[in-house]
Amino acid sequence: MQTSFKRAGIIGVGLIGGSFAAALRQHALADYLIGLDDQQKTLDEALKLGLIDEGSVHPAALINCDLIFLAVPVFQTEAVLESLLPYLSPTALVTDAGSTKQDVIEAARRALGERFVNFVPGHPIAGKETNGPAAAQATLYCKKNVILTPVEKTSAAALACIQAMWGRLGAHVAIMSPLEHDTVFAAVSHLPHLLAYALVWQVAHSENATVKLDCAGAGFRDFTRIAASSPSMWTDIFLANKTALLEELNTYQAVLEQVQTMLQTHDRTVLQGWLSSAANTRQNWSLLHSRRESKLGASAEQTENNA
Amino acid sequence: MQTSFKRAGIIGVGLIGGSFAAALRQHALADYLIGLDDQQKTLDEALKLGLIDEGSVHPAALINCDLIFLAVPVFQTEAVLESLLPYLSPTALVTDAGSTKQDVIEAARRALGERFVNFVPGHPIAGKETNGPAAAQATLYCKKNVILTPVEKTSAAALACIQAMWGRLGAHVAIMSPLEHDTVFAAVSHLPHLLAYALVWQVAHSENATVKLDCAGAGFRDFTRIAASSPSMWTDIFLANKTALLEELNTYQAVLEQVQTMLQTHDRTVLQGWLSSAANTRQNWSLLHSRRESKLGASAEQTENNA
Repeated sequence: MQTSFKRAGIIGVGLIGGSFAAALRQHALADYLIGLDDQQKTLDEALKLGLIDEGSVHPAALINCDLIFLAVPVFQTEAVLESLLPYLSPTALVTDAGSTKQDVIEAARRALGERFVNFVPGHPIAGKETNGPAAAQATLYCKKNVILTPVEKTSAAALACIQAMWGRLGAHVAIMSPLEHDTVFAAVSHLPHLLAYALVWQVAHSENATVKLDCAGAGFRDFTRIAASSPSMWTDIFLANKTALLEELNTYQAVLEQVQTMLQTHDRTVLQGWLSSAANTRQNWSLLHSRRESKLGASAEQTENNA
Repeated sequence: MQTSFKRAGIIGVGLIGGSFAAALRQHALADYLIGLDDQQKTLDEALKLGLIDEGSVHPAALINCDLIFLAVPVFQTEAVLESLLPYLSPTALVTDAGSTKQDVIEAARRALGERFVNFVPGHPIAGKETNGPAAAQATLYCKKNVILTPVEKTSAAALACIQAMWGRLGAHVAIMSPLEHDTVFAAVSHLPHLLAYALVWQVAHSENATVKLDCAGAGFRDFTRIAASSPSMWTDIFLANKTALLEELNTYQAVLEQVQTMLQTHDRTVLQGWLSSAANTRQNWSLLHSRRESKLGASAEQTENNA
């Protein structure tokens, strides 16, 4: 099974693509690395850092690649793959790092035609607060989860290769259906992001916003940390996964209505029972999570933007 | 003006009361410290740690005190002050550390009768993830905000004394109306806590909860950290401040409905503008906050439970 490549093409050489390039090089899984990006400055930086051997703003540069790694905003998937198609080798494996999967799969299906069988949809759960090639690191995916979401048409051989490749890069690979992936991440990542943005928006647009922000402490700080994330990236993700997100949001609104009733009826026992149930879950999660983190040797602080 | 005391009575000698006792002692602001608590074990621990000179489960022990510091769940304010009243010196200053102020003030007004003029409502914005006398530290309030919320009946002299006392303990004192205090903290502390509990509850009670919790990363971790806080304490706070909290919750639900519409109409420009507005506020807050924290020399991690 092929897990090393002659010519690897990395589309988008920022943190995610740049780290992938660096990881391939560190593990000697690619002989020659070509970066494609719409920003010449980013390519120059990636070249200077030695992340890639060659950089180009034109997809023709990716001719004859046997591996393509797509690290662009999910919204751009279809256009990027369409522009790549004329230069795409029939046997090239294509995979991606998008935070949503159903929309990326449909975009790839439309753009790639019969080459779609070689597209292995992926989502490495890794990121950092900083961006760009300078933030890239060869160990970004080491001991992190990578979720692959193959569909019926996905070639089993392609899936096996991509799975083995991530394994050789030190990642822990899980297979999920695209729907399950999007539902899960709508609940544990996309919804919290939306809720954090909404809380900050509400405080900022309220009557005594300055006093409020001045009084805000550590609870506010941690709850809203993710509301400082890139608005363009999160616009993409929210819209790409809007069906699952709207469903989670709907459930959340129903939950808030339940709490509203508990407050209105002043039912101390019911309210405390409800809070205890959540607190127990969170305390147990914390124990399991910190155990897993220390087992994996990974820093919890490093998994923000792409989670 | 009196800022040091002969006999100081501390009601509740856990983290908040214990730290206050330790701070008074460190700054030589009290000759003799008496702890009152309903748990003999807590008193024994506080005595052993040297936080107090004497401990009792009976309020009679607080006879002749010239300062009373109340650090009990806000819900217990009235009963505790009522039981104290027979032993309360007519000139004793009484202050508290409750996270809500309007309800505490009404409770004190009912319990203290004409002694209410000497009650100075307060809220030191400090706390830690750990509790009990062992977690107490003399520097807990140093360089932290303390909010005092006097009412019309509050004696100006009593207010001045308590304000000066906090100043001598190294805290930064702000004066606010009880209503403003409760509105501000409903927005930046109580609502986020409620929302974090609700998100965890929703994930825990959803179909594939185990997979979701397994996939949850750093965004989930920080957003939900406060959902691990004490359910009994937060039941108290939510119910004590339910008018302001319900109003904030109502506004929040309206904000979520707006976002829902943005998602449904797939309006990329409006959605990105909305997210950018929140992200800007949060990024600016972060800059100001970290500057203030470094200026104050305080650790942001230390202000959880009581904020």
